[in-house]
Amino acid sequence: MTDTAPLFDRVAIIGIGLIGSSLARALTEYGVARSVVCADRSIDVCAKAMELGIVEMATTEIPVAMDGADLVVLCSPVGSFAEVGEAIAPHLREGMIISDVGSVKQAVLRDIGPHLPDGVHLVPGHPVAGTEHSGPEAGFASLFQGRWCILTPPPGTDAGAVEKMTALWRRIGSTVEIMEASHHDRVLAITSHLPHLIAYTIVGTASDLEETTKSEVIKFSAGGFRDFTRIAASDPVMWRDIFLNNREAVLDTLQRFTEDLTALQRAIRWGEGQQLQDHFSKTRTIRRSIIDAKQA
Amino acid sequence: MTDTAPLFDRVAIIGIGLIGSSLARALTEYGVARSVVCADRSIDVCAKAMELGIVEMATTEIPVAMDGADLVVLCSPVGSFAEVGEAIAPHLREGMIISDVGSVKQAVLRDIGPHLPDGVHLVPGHPVAGTEHSGPEAGFASLFQGRWCILTPPPGTDAGAVEKMTALWRRIGSTVEIMEASHHDRVLAITSHLPHLIAYTIVGTASDLEETTKSEVIKFSAGGFRDFTRIAASDPVMWRDIFLNNREAVLDTLQRFTEDLTALQRAIRWGEGQQLQDHFSKTRTIRRSIIDAKQA
Repeated sequence: MTDTAPLFDRVAIIGIGLIGSSLARALTEYGVARSVVCADRSIDVCAKAMELGIVEMATTEIPVAMDGADLVVLCSPVGSFAEVGEAIAPHLREGMIISDVGSVKQAVLRDIGPHLPDGVHLVPGHPVAGTEHSGPEAGFASLFQGRWCILTPPPGTDAGAVEKMTALWRRIGSTVEIMEASHHDRVLAITSHLPHLIAYTIVGTASDLEETTKSEVIKFSAGGFRDFTRIAASDPVMWRDIFLNNREAVLDTLQRFTEDLTALQRAIRWGEGQQLQDHFSKTRTIRRSIIDAKQA
Repeated sequence: MTDTAPLFDRVAIIGIGLIGSSLARALTEYGVARSVVCADRSIDVCAKAMELGIVEMATTEIPVAMDGADLVVLCSPVGSFAEVGEAIAPHLREGMIISDVGSVKQAVLRDIGPHLPDGVHLVPGHPVAGTEHSGPEAGFASLFQGRWCILTPPPGTDAGAVEKMTALWRRIGSTVEIMEASHHDRVLAITSHLPHLIAYTIVGTASDLEETTKSEVIKFSAGGFRDFTRIAASDPVMWRDIFLNNREAVLDTLQRFTEDLTALQRAIRWGEGQQLQDHFSKTRTIRRSIIDAKQA
């Protein structure tokens, strides 16, 4: 197999939204799969995916999409995984790889794991990439370029399956990191889940303020607020499911955040300027590291 | 006076950092002033401003910069205004306009107002623009293009002076809004000050987490965290002064934010998915409004 030969015959994408459609485009454009098909529970979304020409076939029936597939990637919201796990169970074949792109990873093992017999390989994945837009029309093939993809295969997973999934993500431009699902969920709680929760909160607080009009909040958003609104425009169902499925890590991280916020609040109330300045100086250096790591 | 004639003979910029140097550049480039000079308490910053060629003269002595100036604009951190007010007091002349670019506005009236005799016009201003970078080398003439500038002249301010400052900001690309200082401070508390406080907090929380390494936080920052780090890289002294000088409005807004965050925290803990989804759907529409208002 050369570096440019397809890695898979047929990839079935379950759920063809922003990430699913970006993956479908990338798998075709970078020659990873001979054929890409999708299943989505919405007939309208299926029609849109066909119209966009990003899949060979779209269907509302998961078994139809799985026919002939050597890789099935779950790209629907994490809350649907238990149901999808049941739907795929009767159609699994020896040697198939089952993966996903969910933002929480312990829940994948919990919801999909029990449905898989020996010989079917579960290699959960999480591309750390996205935009605030949703739907198949929002996707693009280069979304994963220069981004990280975290794989969390459970202990004992077939090494060949992990290698194939690593090769897939590398081929479409990502750098792959392998870690335990529980560790993933703690790291992402702080780098992604808490930032989203905070952004959703502050945008809600702003829109509820009765003494400032909504138009003023929008007018003067360039002072910092607008950066939060981009994050708070992310898909509501996807994020509902992330918070419900990474509850412990999110609540723990949130508790630490609240303690830190209370300390700064107290410093403001008591006019402790030096404490504020020291804190603000420390956080500045983190930004520099992110720029240096080319993740800015 | 035609639309392109200079509005001022000589403008003295006090404090030549990101905003001061951007203003100096813009006043020259758009022909607003015949001459722009600056005072800065750092001799190194003065030398840098001269080297960049953005002022006709730079000095550490405020009275020297004020000589012959018909407009003095305070661009130093808000916490320095009481001291600067004392320094400029003996050198004020009939007809002079005193302005500033501070992010809080009631403090300007408090700290500068008492030093000004009748016939000297105080027109406080706040360009809602900036970047996370600091210093004279970070400035650029187009920083204010397409942004809002809020003027908060106290009741009874000379109308001609307000008109001239309005014309200045329009000439360099901004849209001017006039409001009361106290209203400004409440609006900016939610659109700018609280977002910065939250960003500073979460970046600090992340860097203190012992179970995830700092390199992991940086690696996977594209999941949302990096948007906060940009804001949390803003000038530490400037932001210390903003929080200390808009204490009441910031603490009040923070209290509302904390209540809202607690409600979402509770919804996560008790698995109330519908409440989360409803909240996240509401915030999404705010983003759309900001894009429509061309402030994204």
